[in-house]
Amino acid sequence: MVNETQQSCSASSSSRSDGGSSSGSESSKDNSRCSTPVLDADRHERLREKMRRRQEAGDRWFSLEFFPPRTANAAVNLISRFDRMGAGGPLFIDVTWHPAGDPGSDKETSSMIIANTAVNYCGLETILHMTCCNQTKDDITGHLQKAKRLGLKNIMALRGDPAGEEWEEEVDGFNHAVDLVKHIRSEFDDYFDICVAGYPKGHPEAESYETDLRHLKEKVFAGADFIITQLFFRPETFLKFMKDCQAIGITCPIIPGIFPIQGYHSLRQLVKLSKLEVPQEIKDVIEPIKDNDAAIRNYGVELAVSMCRELLDSGVVHGLHFYTLNREVATTEVLKRLGLWKEDPRRPLPWAVSAHPKRRVEDVRPIFWASRPKSYIYRTQEWDDFPNGRWGNSSSPAFGELKDYYLFYLKSKSPREELLKMWGEELTGEESVFEVFTCYITGEPNRNGYKVTCMPWNDDPLATETNLLKDQLEKVNRRGILTINSQPNINGKPSTDPIVGWGPSGGYVFQKAYLEFFTSSEIVTALLKVLKKYELRVNYHIVNVKGQNITNAPDLQPNAVTWGIFPGREIIQPTVVDPVSFLYWKDEAFALWIEQWAKLYEEESPSRMIIQYIHDNYYLVNLVDNDFPLENCLWQVVEDTFELLN
Amino acid sequence: MVNETQQSCSASSSSRSDGGSSSGSESSKDNSRCSTPVLDADRHERLREKMRRRQEAGDRWFSLEFFPPRTANAAVNLISRFDRMGAGGPLFIDVTWHPAGDPGSDKETSSMIIANTAVNYCGLETILHMTCCNQTKDDITGHLQKAKRLGLKNIMALRGDPAGEEWEEEVDGFNHAVDLVKHIRSEFDDYFDICVAGYPKGHPEAESYETDLRHLKEKVFAGADFIITQLFFRPETFLKFMKDCQAIGITCPIIPGIFPIQGYHSLRQLVKLSKLEVPQEIKDVIEPIKDNDAAIRNYGVELAVSMCRELLDSGVVHGLHFYTLNREVATTEVLKRLGLWKEDPRRPLPWAVSAHPKRRVEDVRPIFWASRPKSYIYRTQEWDDFPNGRWGNSSSPAFGELKDYYLFYLKSKSPREELLKMWGEELTGEESVFEVFTCYITGEPNRNGYKVTCMPWNDDPLATETNLLKDQLEKVNRRGILTINSQPNINGKPSTDPIVGWGPSGGYVFQKAYLEFFTSSEIVTALLKVLKKYELRVNYHIVNVKGQNITNAPDLQPNAVTWGIFPGREIIQPTVVDPVSFLYWKDEAFALWIEQWAKLYEEESPSRMIIQYIHDNYYLVNLVDNDFPLENCLWQVVEDTFELLN
Repeated sequence: MVNETQQSCSASSSSRSDGGSSSGSESSKDNSRCSTPVLDADRHERLREKMRRRQEAGDRWFSLEFFPPRTANAAVNLISRFDRMGAGGPLFIDVTWHPAGDPGSDKETSSMIIANTAVNYCGLETILHMTCCNQTKDDITGHLQKAKRLGLKNIMALRGDPAGEEWEEEVDGFNHAVDLVKHIRSEFDDYFDICVAGYPKGHPEAESYETDLRHLKEKVFAGADFIITQLFFRPETFLKFMKDCQAIGITCPIIPGIFPIQGYHSLRQLVKLSKLEVPQEIKDVIEPIKDNDAAIRNYGVELAVSMCRELLDSGVVHGLHFYTLNREVATTEVLKRLGLWKEDPRRPLPWAVSAHPKRRVEDVRPIFWASRPKSYIYRTQEWDDFPNGRWGNSSSPAFGELKDYYLFYLKSKSPREELLKMWGEELTGEESVFEVFTCYITGEPNRNGYKVTCMPWNDDPLATETNLLKDQLEKVNRRGILTINSQPNINGKPSTDPIVGWGPSGGYVFQKAYLEFFTSSEIVTALLKVLKKYELRVNYHIVNVKGQNITNAPDLQPNAVTWGIFPGREIIQPTVVDPVSFLYWKDEAFALWIEQWAKLYEEESPSRMIIQYIHDNYYLVNLVDNDFPLENCLWQVVEDTFELLN
Repeated sequence: MVNETQQSCSASSSSRSDGGSSSGSESSKDNSRCSTPVLDADRHERLREKMRRRQEAGDRWFSLEFFPPRTANAAVNLISRFDRMGAGGPLFIDVTWHPAGDPGSDKETSSMIIANTAVNYCGLETILHMTCCNQTKDDITGHLQKAKRLGLKNIMALRGDPAGEEWEEEVDGFNHAVDLVKHIRSEFDDYFDICVAGYPKGHPEAESYETDLRHLKEKVFAGADFIITQLFFRPETFLKFMKDCQAIGITCPIIPGIFPIQGYHSLRQLVKLSKLEVPQEIKDVIEPIKDNDAAIRNYGVELAVSMCRELLDSGVVHGLHFYTLNREVATTEVLKRLGLWKEDPRRPLPWAVSAHPKRRVEDVRPIFWASRPKSYIYRTQEWDDFPNGRWGNSSSPAFGELKDYYLFYLKSKSPREELLKMWGEELTGEESVFEVFTCYITGEPNRNGYKVTCMPWNDDPLATETNLLKDQLEKVNRRGILTINSQPNINGKPSTDPIVGWGPSGGYVFQKAYLEFFTSSEIVTALLKVLKKYELRVNYHIVNVKGQNITNAPDLQPNAVTWGIFPGREIIQPTVVDPVSFLYWKDEAFALWIEQWAKLYEEESPSRMIIQYIHDNYYLVNLVDNDFPLENCLWQVVEDTFELLN
């Protein structure tokens, strides 16, 4: 009935339990004592392991290819696209390498920095492409070291296009992708997962299809973990290629590269670059509609869906790789029609997790950066340890300075003109600021007819969760309690709840009500009087830009405001109100008044002086209602405050 | 309105918040960032700080003095008394030093070991007495080093009684308590809190009352933190003494020593030793009733209560020190009448906390040792770090071997004859074992008319909390599910709940239902079939003495089964079901069958062979119902199992 286990109590790390399959029990993995909650196995596995696990579980997946942008503005847009397309649940994304674009540099548009942003700020598993021809060993090693330092874990090893017609192989140089694969394995051992390219029709420069297959086998045997193929137009092309690979002993995963046709010109250009021939049946459809972009895209989507279905139905394909050309619509449409796009992606934690390997254990953050997760990641990037399980114990309060407000992934996505339309070309007093906050909450257009879709403290429209509090928020903002962060109390909703759920299924999530706002010193004076009545129930921190600080928090301890209870796991408490980091957040929150808002106006202008006045005189307040099973009392606190003022 | 704060965000540890008293906010303490949850400030303060805090808060407190026992059996009883009297909430206890009894040795009856047990196993703040005359500096340093090693933090520095009439002061020797105080401060700096003795009537050997006061002042100025007085019979004696002390500049706390008269002979003996004179008015009452112990004790209680009331009413006395003579009744009675005895002591955590300084941060334990906390403390005494916040992260699975089952604080309090009466002089089969378990649960007498008040796995009668499950437990034990540990599910009861509450007030406590039992392999086979239906809801670990182990726990992760949410704090999860430590517990749980039960019978006797059979063939099972907000499904699991077997 049960299996014998080599279990020894004196040797701790070898202690493991083992259930036999015949007993119907689940077998424990052969790992030693787990030091962190594996809330989401994805966070702890390398890409090749994720791929294997998905395949074993019969899960189908997709991945997305992007190229680096040309301009800084395009970079900001691409990162927003990463966030949106990342929400659909790709297994990974990859970023191509453009030798002409200084791909290893620190420029905000370089392949290296775009991949870094995807991993660290968007939390996406990312493959960085890298080509090797015409480069010295030192250059390549330098790029790889930098990639490792930035937290990148996967490389797509390519030869790249030789520069100029006259290129010849160099002795001991990097002449083929296999040289790069060998180099990575010899210099970095097993650190990177390595991907290589496969050519279903054979590489255009190869002597023959068979020779090319042998080259592919060499790359795999040199240490590649999986293969992504060049695009192709017919499913049978890929299925034959896959069979041929297996016949010569290639056993690693082979992922078909899918190119949804999105337009006449992009197709022609791609075909030219890849030296592929478009089948006649496709040309016959496209040529007559070549000036109708929408028609071509519809056709491209149809074609891609039907090809992907055939591949998936074959039973040998588990994942699909999409050449997006940095566009969203066509690929998203194909994925939705295939049922691969996750409409309601499960959040492992309530905030956006970073995919940097150093941050694997991270599972607690202060609530203050809830709407600015990229800023939080940026300001804590130098930390060696991340809080795990408990904030108070392991967190370093050494937040990085927010020196450069124009750092591209932190700056507003909207240009100055748009911000002026939303936040007011001309402010007439504090009330016009209250109006902006109120319009942001309600979604109603402002007096000039523009909707306020972002604020200095929040780049996105109101979160679904905050919508639960909308009526109350509107009321208080109108009266000068300028809210920038809030959450309702939750007393044990299922972890699968579409609005407030997070973590594995079968669990329960909880929250204490939270409210954070700027307000005048007059209101703070009344508020403090009211708070005496709520002394044990409500914790507060009240601070102005100079650091004058009032609190009733015991001993500077953090207060857990979000937590989850899950089957077979320790408690997770991903969000805390921490008195110490609040003072770091305060600097950022006050600075955003000036950097993002005041500076839209001329110096000495009345509008600018109004914002400056608020910055200099208002307080930043946060309130926590500790009695989460009861009705949120924070609205009553605010109500009482207004009453006292009347 | 608010006070300026010296707040600097770049210097983390100096960041503090400060609320002005005029603003009505609570001022944060001047400590740096707190690394652990100060659930109970008592755990983190030294004795002198606790005393000061109590005094500032206007709280009255008491302490208890004991002397070391003569025999090992008496030691076991004294430790039980520590547990019972500790429940009343003394600020500290103290253990006297008997030079004739080898007080610094490792004997189970030595002052050192009794004090060690009080601190580490009973969780009591403890003062160890130490005398210095007739001892070398090395001896004394050795004792102090040992005390420190054992986690003792407080010393009562005494001269002790000179051995023999001929004693003379030695040059550079330890002639007075002040020499010991100086020695402790010079060798151990500020590590120990030091207490010294005060004599309200003057020391009997002192030249005069005034000379004695000067000696006391010397002791205090040499580094003593507070004074406990010799017993006295009239409150005015103490109050005058206190005034006189203050007049010559003694400002530290002075705690009156209270001696409730408990019997004619003990009074006479004490008076002889202390060279005190019993006032005539007391003699007049006692002499006529000297053979009536109860009458004398009643009088003694009355007298003590009235004296204590007068002392407390004086306003200068905040704490009372009781000379218990190792007896319970009189002192407890006095304390209850004074309202100082805590009828419902608040538990800082759901298990008995150890007072060893190394264990200050400890706030997570496996549930398995719930009824054997002293064994858990013993087996983890070599740990350098204790889990704090999360078990999985910081716990060492290096449990000490339980080599010596006769270790005095681990062995059964009951003698063999009583155990045989409870557990059966002669067992006739597995069913007679089922009966013993059932009688323990129900409290009904067994077939021979004896109540079963303890079991090998549980030295005490059923816990109040377990009583909630009594009917269900009885039913399953009758049928061979031999339960040794269980808890009901709790979905957010107030932390002040008298049965399941723990931690600071204003919080909420939660539990997942837990059931642990021994059972036959036949029942396990059926159970495993039933458990498939509960796969996601119920986590199980099933193991036999050989280590055959079946579980559905993911990745050997611990499962939090008790947790609490408190105002302004991080989550506390004091109890986990940890798959790794379960295998260490398994060894102990199975060994108790043999060590405590089988060995009551002759070798080869049928009774012994029945227990041996169970030990060799039964499984130890634990079940957790993860769905704590729903009705506990574990009884249904057991019900279904029995049904399947029928």
